[in-house]
Amino acid sequence: MLNFEFCSPTRFLFGKGTENKAGEMIKRYGGTKVLIHYGGGSVVRSGLLQRVKESLEQEGIEFLTLGGVQPNPRSGLVYQGIDLCRKENVDFILAVGGGSVIDSAKAIAAGTLMDCDFWEYWKVKKPITKALPVGTVLTIPAAGSEASPNSVITHEETLVKRGCAGEALRPRFSILNPELTFTLPAWQTASGASDIIAHVLERYFTNTKDVEVTDRLCEALLLTVIRETPRVIADPTCYEARASIMWAGALAHNNVVGVGREQDWATHAIEHELSALYDVTHGAGLAVLFPAWMTKALPHNPKLFATMATRIFGIQNTGDDAETGALGIQAWRDFFTSIGMPDNLRELGVKEEDFEYMANRLLLKPDGTLGNFVKLTPDDVVEIYKSCY
Amino acid sequence: MLNFEFCSPTRFLFGKGTENKAGEMIKRYGGTKVLIHYGGGSVVRSGLLQRVKESLEQEGIEFLTLGGVQPNPRSGLVYQGIDLCRKENVDFILAVGGGSVIDSAKAIAAGTLMDCDFWEYWKVKKPITKALPVGTVLTIPAAGSEASPNSVITHEETLVKRGCAGEALRPRFSILNPELTFTLPAWQTASGASDIIAHVLERYFTNTKDVEVTDRLCEALLLTVIRETPRVIADPTCYEARASIMWAGALAHNNVVGVGREQDWATHAIEHELSALYDVTHGAGLAVLFPAWMTKALPHNPKLFATMATRIFGIQNTGDDAETGALGIQAWRDFFTSIGMPDNLRELGVKEEDFEYMANRLLLKPDGTLGNFVKLTPDDVVEIYKSCY
Repeated sequence: MLNFEFCSPTRFLFGKGTENKAGEMIKRYGGTKVLIHYGGGSVVRSGLLQRVKESLEQEGIEFLTLGGVQPNPRSGLVYQGIDLCRKENVDFILAVGGGSVIDSAKAIAAGTLMDCDFWEYWKVKKPITKALPVGTVLTIPAAGSEASPNSVITHEETLVKRGCAGEALRPRFSILNPELTFTLPAWQTASGASDIIAHVLERYFTNTKDVEVTDRLCEALLLTVIRETPRVIADPTCYEARASIMWAGALAHNNVVGVGREQDWATHAIEHELSALYDVTHGAGLAVLFPAWMTKALPHNPKLFATMATRIFGIQNTGDDAETGALGIQAWRDFFTSIGMPDNLRELGVKEEDFEYMANRLLLKPDGTLGNFVKLTPDDVVEIYKSCY
Repeated sequence: MLNFEFCSPTRFLFGKGTENKAGEMIKRYGGTKVLIHYGGGSVVRSGLLQRVKESLEQEGIEFLTLGGVQPNPRSGLVYQGIDLCRKENVDFILAVGGGSVIDSAKAIAAGTLMDCDFWEYWKVKKPITKALPVGTVLTIPAAGSEASPNSVITHEETLVKRGCAGEALRPRFSILNPELTFTLPAWQTASGASDIIAHVLERYFTNTKDVEVTDRLCEALLLTVIRETPRVIADPTCYEARASIMWAGALAHNNVVGVGREQDWATHAIEHELSALYDVTHGAGLAVLFPAWMTKALPHNPKLFATMATRIFGIQNTGDDAETGALGIQAWRDFFTSIGMPDNLRELGVKEEDFEYMANRLLLKPDGTLGNFVKLTPDDVVEIYKSCY
């Protein structure tokens, strides 16, 4: 196990009716003037935004609102939010929505306290050391942003999509009410589940040897999401299954299951290009790309893939790790399509002629490669795109 | 899943050499005058105490020391510590040792700020709301106190052993260097592992239905400790196995795997009577009692026991859940004895004539019972004691 430092101080309020405690929580964390940040009409139509506002009013907390966050959130609204927070002396940001809303809120929170353009940090992933405090009311279990120190933003003009991180970006509190996810359409539910799975897989595939505890914890989250996603697609109001997915989504990305091990993260970067260029739903892009990446990575450590196949899908080892691992990869493909995810890039509207362009936009490490478990060149990435076209 | 609130703000510094950062961490958390609290001679002999002191000196942090904590820590030393902290205006307590040292440090930290006798809180488990900040350098993975809001103390005169809890008791930071556990004798290693397992089992056996995510996370920790304990007993300096046990020990008791589910905790209470009266090693007592408790609890939910048997020990379901569950219980017994734990109370020096006395000293709930998964009367407890005598 590698040396690590881990601190996840986010306070999670989990369960039915917890959104009504938003005001109480903001007060507890010292917020007096709040920006409520949200996306489209669903939080308005469902009455959630109104309930949250009432909860703040009950505590006598002043607030203003900024809606309009879109999936794959853009820099334009972040700049608007920064201006607003500065002008109105906002001291707390409450994100009401999914990962895009929370990521946008985090970028506003950090940008407000910067004396430079916020994109200067995002474009090169410079660590964030200060930000306004952020709280969240989560409506989509997927990105894990409710528990993570990360935020991913797409630049409005260049369509460059970059993730940035820093402990200052961890939410002070996150309110997780599984009932708020009952109305998620099957596509979004499945995309969210795929995103959660991908967060675990990025950690699971590692060159760090002999890390049983985090291996097992990663597998626990994967087993959970594999069991529960078909249940909620069949019965969208199944509270228990929604609840398990929601807690798994938070733990998949607060890093408690990923500490002490080298992590990969190439597939996320490869997918970001799709989302940036074609506005592909992040989870759907990951569902297509991950089996393709796995096939490329399999020869690097067939034993780990065989272990995955056995422990996650109950596949008996054929005596040949590579063969068993390949069966495991096919099981992932089958799982993703069984929950309604595509298995090729064409279905996502991606064009073959953009493969090279996308591969060349990737932010590579100084050695010119991407990822850690296997080190990919831009040519390797093109090959991966092609293999799942 | 039940509604819950979860916040684990402890900062974990994990890995080789991390004890040298004790001073840096105390400074980060605002400590200026520190009580270093420790147990017997091993931290002195190993040079650990000296290294920690040097780390504080390097940061210019003033400190005093109080050693002498014994296993099943006593109230007498807690009172001494409280007096010392008040007299010397101590503002931070650093525990260097295992769970007993940390629990004693927590009691001192809370007691120093009370305007009554600290035992007034412990004897009735009144929640702790304020305490001096505590940091830890862990030397025995077992009690989970390095990550928990709990502290268990035995009263010097009455030999009553009680656990107390409160968010104020969560350590600000915990330093976990697996190398510091290389010198643990097999008995202590195995007792510690049994304690970790027991913390998970107290959470695993629940009446809360359909909680897949925490079921799976509990199983992940159990599988880890079952795999790694024999490895470290065979090879005490196996870093990776020691590391997995150490991280599992922290997660087994910071409650991340136990949120949203009713928990049992009868077996811990039943064991505390042994430790209080006979100074039994806590983990060893648990290793004897847990299979006995399981046998009593089996009829309450055979299906859960069968699931445990299958997922933890790979036992195939015979078609009869109770039978399969019983095989799982036997597998636990076999596991505990395989790592050198006893399988009966006699070996621990417990006397049959004390069973009734011990059962009658238990702190029962208002309805006169103990535990949640199954509700035990004092007579049931006597029966359990007898069944593993």
